[in-house]
Amino acid sequence: MAVLYKADPVRGAEWQRLLAAKAPDLPCFVWPEAGDPRAIRYLAVWTPPDRMLERFPNAEIVISVGAGVDQFDLSAIPAHIPVVRMLEPGIAEGMVEYVTLAVLALHRDLPAYLEDQRAERWSAIRLRPAASRRIGVLGLGQLGEACCRRLATLGFTVAGWSRSPKAIPGITCHAGAAALPGFLAATDILVCLLPLTAETKGFLHAGLFAQLAPGAGLVNAGRGPHLVQEDLLAALESGQISAAFLDVTDPEPLPSGHPFWHHPRILMTPHIASQTRPETAVDFVLEVIAAHKAGRPLPGLVDRSRGY
Amino acid sequence: MAVLYKADPVRGAEWQRLLAAKAPDLPCFVWPEAGDPRAIRYLAVWTPPDRMLERFPNAEIVISVGAGVDQFDLSAIPAHIPVVRMLEPGIAEGMVEYVTLAVLALHRDLPAYLEDQRAERWSAIRLRPAASRRIGVLGLGQLGEACCRRLATLGFTVAGWSRSPKAIPGITCHAGAAALPGFLAATDILVCLLPLTAETKGFLHAGLFAQLAPGAGLVNAGRGPHLVQEDLLAALESGQISAAFLDVTDPEPLPSGHPFWHHPRILMTPHIASQTRPETAVDFVLEVIAAHKAGRPLPGLVDRSRGY
Repeated sequence: MAVLYKADPVRGAEWQRLLAAKAPDLPCFVWPEAGDPRAIRYLAVWTPPDRMLERFPNAEIVISVGAGVDQFDLSAIPAHIPVVRMLEPGIAEGMVEYVTLAVLALHRDLPAYLEDQRAERWSAIRLRPAASRRIGVLGLGQLGEACCRRLATLGFTVAGWSRSPKAIPGITCHAGAAALPGFLAATDILVCLLPLTAETKGFLHAGLFAQLAPGAGLVNAGRGPHLVQEDLLAALESGQISAAFLDVTDPEPLPSGHPFWHHPRILMTPHIASQTRPETAVDFVLEVIAAHKAGRPLPGLVDRSRGY
Repeated sequence: MAVLYKADPVRGAEWQRLLAAKAPDLPCFVWPEAGDPRAIRYLAVWTPPDRMLERFPNAEIVISVGAGVDQFDLSAIPAHIPVVRMLEPGIAEGMVEYVTLAVLALHRDLPAYLEDQRAERWSAIRLRPAASRRIGVLGLGQLGEACCRRLATLGFTVAGWSRSPKAIPGITCHAGAAALPGFLAATDILVCLLPLTAETKGFLHAGLFAQLAPGAGLVNAGRGPHLVQEDLLAALESGQISAAFLDVTDPEPLPSGHPFWHHPRILMTPHIASQTRPETAVDFVLEVIAAHKAGRPLPGLVDRSRGY
């Protein structure tokens, strides 16, 4: 029995070292090395290898090393093999930090102030109390829930929206398409943490922006294709959106000359909101393997009909 | 008995409205109006009027509308008149938000990413866990303590330094000149919240920067004259300081063409870290007046020998 790691090889070396310490009986190979292919049972991958089952006929589980599986072609993975999303706590910790930074930056008008700085302008904008700022979080999975909780402790008024009903203490939770307009109308800063599926591609578009409070801020820490990029430019132009903080784009990186690179009201980072932390990721993989061996439900199991 | 407000007149109108509601028997005048000058007992001011006691012979207390009194000439206020600093909670709330934003921005390499964005570069910097990032807060008054507590809840390793010994649960507190080198050597991001006095002018200078962990970040939310501006430029040039987040400068605004306006590793805001909130400021003023009438110690009383 062995693990195959297929993603960034520098991190792969850390996975190897950590697994050797925590599970000495479970060898870990870093792709393209694989030892005896018949021994590979567990694949921890950014994307699965082509013809996976031909290469690794005894594969039992495929675990994404990222928080999502939108980079997978799920149809290429035989239905009897469970697919698992990474749920290690380091991802949520990084995401909570990033969303806190982005929301505070928009709340405290950082894009306008940085634009002023470069123009040598010194002009105060009146400060609004955090409690009067309504933050709306799209997507209430592990990451969305953790962000809602943190934002509430900072004094913001926080609401969340998800496809299926959720309950988070202290947070107003909305669910389903019918509840979306009311949620949007009461949102000053919108945070996208949706999973990327066929249904959520292009979710952040002109029609949605028009329903937000005028001059709303936007944080996209989901995936680039959630956002219709030209619609954001138009909403910034009209002032319906005052500023955006983006960690993801489509494609990544954007082509040279794309207007996002130089837009004064767009602050952009290179998909670094959260990174899987090898120490805790390895613990999660061992937990999945233990659950599988014991016949217990797998943590992070992907529902293929939903796509996440 | 009446209150004289002497600062921004727009806010003055709010003070008037709020005092009229909360203390109908206590008229409030907004400078230069003052009604009968002999009725003015309490002055809430950014700076006291010239020849204060000649104009207002029955003045009993001078209250700064800001968190500091460095803008006062304390020697011009007779010794028998107590001087009080504004301690309303809105100031601390705004400062905690600002310092959280600034520390997260430096922790998450926002200055480097924004520089990359404008250069059309897409390059991830490896994320360090918050617990491995040592934040050092200079000044442990009401604002410094509130910032330390919040930063600790975000997972950072937080230490503080002040002139006289303080104790804050969960925070390593250092005091006095002898403890400063050890505190600085263990600091990755330094936050200045010192009061501005003759002793702390120029506190942030080359000799101090050299004692920080290499590549440290700097947040100045104190006062502009705390910082020796040319020393910061040299420390950024050498890399000893990696980036700075500044809310204050000297003078404010800086002259046209000053290098801070255009430095890629300096993010600057126009002295907006925190603003006195009229609602709670009026409550504080009424609390000070009540304490004064009852002969109790005044909250926020300035020790003139320390200058804060």
